[in-house]
Amino acid sequence: MTSFTVESFPARTYDKLRYGDTDRQGHINNAVFATLFETGRVSVFHDPAQPILQPGRSFVLARIIIDYKAELFWPGNVEIGTAVKAIGNSSVTFVQALFQAGKCAATAECVVVQVDGATRRSAPLDEAAKARLAALMI
Amino acid sequence: MTSFTVESFPARTYDKLRYGDTDRQGHINNAVFATLFETGRVSVFHDPAQPILQPGRSFVLARIIIDYKAELFWPGNVEIGTAVKAIGNSSVTFVQALFQAGKCAATAECVVVQVDGATRRSAPLDEAAKARLAALMI
Amino acid sequence: MTSFTVESFPARTYDKLRYGDTDRQGHINNAVFATLFETGRVSVFHDPAQPILQPGRSFVLARIIIDYKAELFWPGNVEIGTAVKAIGNSSVTFVQALFQAGKCAATAECVVVQVDGATRRSAPLDEAAKARLAALMI
Amino acid sequence: MTSFTVESFPARTYDKLRYGDTDRQGHINNAVFATLFETGRVSVFHDPAQPILQPGRSFVLARIIIDYKAELFWPGNVEIGTAVKAIGNSSVTFVQALFQAGKCAATAECVVVQVDGATRRSAPLDEAAKARLAALMI
Repeated sequence: MTSFTVESFPARTYDKLRYGDTDRQGHINNAVFATLFETGRVSVFHDPAQPILQPGRSFVLARIIIDYKAELFWPGNVEIGTAVKAIGNSSVTFVQALFQAGKCAATAECVVVQVDGATRRSAPLDEAAKARLAALMI
Repeated sequence: MTSFTVESFPARTYDKLRYGDTDRQGHINNAVFATLFETGRVSVFHDPAQPILQPGRSFVLARIIIDYKAELFWPGNVEIGTAVKAIGNSSVTFVQALFQAGKCAATAECVVVQVDGATRRSAPLDEAAKARLAALMI
Repeated sequence: MTSFTVESFPARTYDKLRYGDTDRQGHINNAVFATLFETGRVSVFHDPAQPILQPGRSFVLARIIIDYKAELFWPGNVEIGTAVKAIGNSSVTFVQALFQAGKCAATAECVVVQVDGATRRSAPLDEAAKARLAALMI
Repeated sequence: MTSFTVESFPARTYDKLRYGDTDRQGHINNAVFATLFETGRVSVFHDPAQPILQPGRSFVLARIIIDYKAELFWPGNVEIGTAVKAIGNSSVTFVQALFQAGKCAATAECVVVQVDGATRRSAPLDEAAKARLAALMI
């Protein structure tokens, strides 16, 4: 898939790998990939131009599937692509990918649920949030 | 599933939650769950009594699916259960679960591949490793 | 100092090293030591039997000096000793040490200030908190 | 000190704050500051144009003093300034500072020792390394 790059995704951000992200195997530890995917999602939820998160609400991760394709190595930046796959009543499904030097290191699919900060129960996405998420569908 | 506890798993260990594992939502950050599942797997691979890892080899994660069931909160310990679901030629599939105060906070299924340290290519599990993993099947 | 062990400290706790705490140098990353010292301090502040933290207040670190004595290696637990060196109006100075297999890996001295959660300004320790801290002096 | 900015330092880099760097107090956890200072030091040691680290050697932290001046908050980047204060036979003393939005959040002074990878004992800096470090003195 020669054309599979971060440009394939409507929402793009990056993270900078840290020395301490490595483990004794010499590569970036597998749990850091989960952090890098989070960087992609929160850049969507907290986009100052188009915030999706509503006051008194928060997003919690319900499920994540990570497919590891290649090792990541320090130093360097990781490009993070995020797209919306499906929008539910109070949840959203994302597809994401990590790239280092143009090569895909991992893909993820994850389901995030909006919850009410007080009750911790799921809370419906409003129309504005749904419209902003719909703009990120592929 | 009243009987679903860490005792349901043949391999059991724990981790101690750290203050810095929390995030600004007040709970344990979602990426820490990936770290806790790793604690379960490495306690199997590096068990001093029955090491599975062979010299010059390492295990890399190929896929992980995490289902988040409940939030984890600091302080406290997390019990981690690990079992083998399937054994391939050079890979093993685990099922795992995290428990805090007896309540399941997350389950995971993950595929780990043994690779040769020099070539970074998959390397077959030997019979001793397969036998040790088979003892952890449920 | 043959008798310098975690038993030298009035407050003692532990942490369990994680695989991801290692870095590509094969040892526990230096920043994790800061986390381990935090584990020692929060076990004092949040001791359920004798909480020092007052409602609406929090403790922030003002200064830390860490002297690294030996490398820490995964796997294993680290014993963490904490003592109070000085008590100010709104601050407390701790001395701490980390031990792995009975050997001191690092010592620290740190100053922590109680702040008001709303104003973020320093807030005096009350008499009960000072008394509890005084019991940890060496 | 109105002119105290990252521009005061001969070596400058940055790091991007991550959501998981926050803790339940809502700010960036204190141990992350140690990681950010490490980012500054490794960018000096591993500078591809002028590497200081010699083959078969590594640098280990012997001491760090961190003075916390202000809280750091997600999201945002942190500018990291690093300068050399003193050069010993096998060690180097750095002074460093972190800035968010132009404001100093913390300063550090730290001593790093070059060690031989095999013996883990201190190993003298060669003349080339000393010259490169000397160029970063202030």
